[in-house]
Amino acid sequence: MRDSDMSIQRISQHPKTSQKQPIETGMVDLVGAGPGDPELLTLKALRSIEQADLVLYDRLVSEEILALIPSNTKTIYVGKAKANHCIPQEQLNLYMVDKAKQGLRICRLKGGDPFVFGRGSEELSVLHEHDVPARVIPGITAASGCTSYAGIPLTHRGLATGCSFITGHKQDGKLDIDWAQLAQLDHTLVFYMGLSSLPEISQQLQRFGKSAKTPAALIEKGCQSDQRVVTGQLDQLPTLASEHQLQSPTLIVIGEVVSLREQLNWLSKLDANQNQFELENSAALSA
Amino acid sequence: MRDSDMSIQRISQHPKTSQKQPIETGMVDLVGAGPGDPELLTLKALRSIEQADLVLYDRLVSEEILALIPSNTKTIYVGKAKANHCIPQEQLNLYMVDKAKQGLRICRLKGGDPFVFGRGSEELSVLHEHDVPARVIPGITAASGCTSYAGIPLTHRGLATGCSFITGHKQDGKLDIDWAQLAQLDHTLVFYMGLSSLPEISQQLQRFGKSAKTPAALIEKGCQSDQRVVTGQLDQLPTLASEHQLQSPTLIVIGEVVSLREQLNWLSKLDANQNQFELENSAALSA
Repeated sequence: MRDSDMSIQRISQHPKTSQKQPIETGMVDLVGAGPGDPELLTLKALRSIEQADLVLYDRLVSEEILALIPSNTKTIYVGKAKANHCIPQEQLNLYMVDKAKQGLRICRLKGGDPFVFGRGSEELSVLHEHDVPARVIPGITAASGCTSYAGIPLTHRGLATGCSFITGHKQDGKLDIDWAQLAQLDHTLVFYMGLSSLPEISQQLQRFGKSAKTPAALIEKGCQSDQRVVTGQLDQLPTLASEHQLQSPTLIVIGEVVSLREQLNWLSKLDANQNQFELENSAALSA
Repeated sequence: MRDSDMSIQRISQHPKTSQKQPIETGMVDLVGAGPGDPELLTLKALRSIEQADLVLYDRLVSEEILALIPSNTKTIYVGKAKANHCIPQEQLNLYMVDKAKQGLRICRLKGGDPFVFGRGSEELSVLHEHDVPARVIPGITAASGCTSYAGIPLTHRGLATGCSFITGHKQDGKLDIDWAQLAQLDHTLVFYMGLSSLPEISQQLQRFGKSAKTPAALIEKGCQSDQRVVTGQLDQLPTLASEHQLQSPTLIVIGEVVSLREQLNWLSKLDANQNQFELENSAALSA
């Protein structure tokens, strides 16, 4: 047996982890599933998925990741699509409390990271109010995973001294964004859930002083096999999104670092065999 | 055999991944090792570690993660500690090019994420200039992992509409930071590598209008078994760091979300048995 296989088996065969332990009170794992590629799951997230009695999953969790849930585990879709809130948040919170009090081990599986625009903190707060033990298992957030796969670094000496993540999702019909500060900041700006707000994002940043020519990218379905990346300038973003008929989820990346993509787009530079290596792994995972 | 074991074994035993494939030209994986807990490695990162002929690792990669490298794999420490640059960056870049051209599969293992203050983009640029195939494997960046384990969400409705990551590392002896914008921004601010700049960070943010009473946290060795978290107010940070003799790496988190820690500190609320579950897993991994 190879050393590497041994280390993976050590994880699986450890007595504490190799079988579901009977537990007196249940618990809830708030789990980040990452941006889509099942290989970007953490070991801890995979273990939580495998050990759960019940998996509650969101809209942005990819099919390949859902395929990792053991077939005898109960699963419930609790995602929110626009105008299609299948389970209200309050009801979901209390459902988790109820099931955990019955002794179930629950995996609350979220796209990306639970603590970055994931409402994980709201769910954890309710769980703690009801004395339900819980864990937070961070995941790779979209801003990090999708830019990596697109060949765009979030920071780069001389081009971006930092990065900022902002939600483009409207609350009560309007965006709550500090445009003046963001437009002046020497940061890579990443907008989550901003596709429908794209004209406003583009206009407001220019209005407060960001150059219309700032390099920018739109990443649709980042880290998935059908990822699409469109690049241009800040003032072109709404047109580009429309021309390419981009759909949600699309991440918006604005900053000088986008100009590095031509040089750093590693996915396109891998030869067929190396790409196949990636794809076959994913196939194996979802088989 | 349990379903869960099967899915892990599917990964290991897939013909393409179960043994090192002979490759004509080598390649380099720029791998994010995450913030310290070996369970926060991604599946893809673990596979890269296991399949490498050569692992080049940084100072911030934890002992537990290094223990996952197969014993017959060559490893070289290439980390940078203050005033102890063991291998200059330029030399390291060319070394990777040279070894990859010899056909080796190289895992360039970095703490956190290669594209967030990790210089991954600089290394990838050199590799591409020399036509060396490379991949970027994103990891959980410190700002995300360390706050999750400290019970501090990066965003929370009503408290933070976004988050910003900034380096506190000085270039040419000074900090290159947009204080005026950051002080006004309704974001959680996370400073990397900022411990020695802490007095300046605290003073400058106050000078540009951030309240001295803004909740703030210092997270030393986040996501490791000896993690320490100290909380207070923005104006108290330098004193707190000194009183508690905090050492690098310490992450600095500033924003209203820090006030949620008391309620959301899930690690402290797990009972001994549940904590043991965590610790024994880590022990198993590093055994």
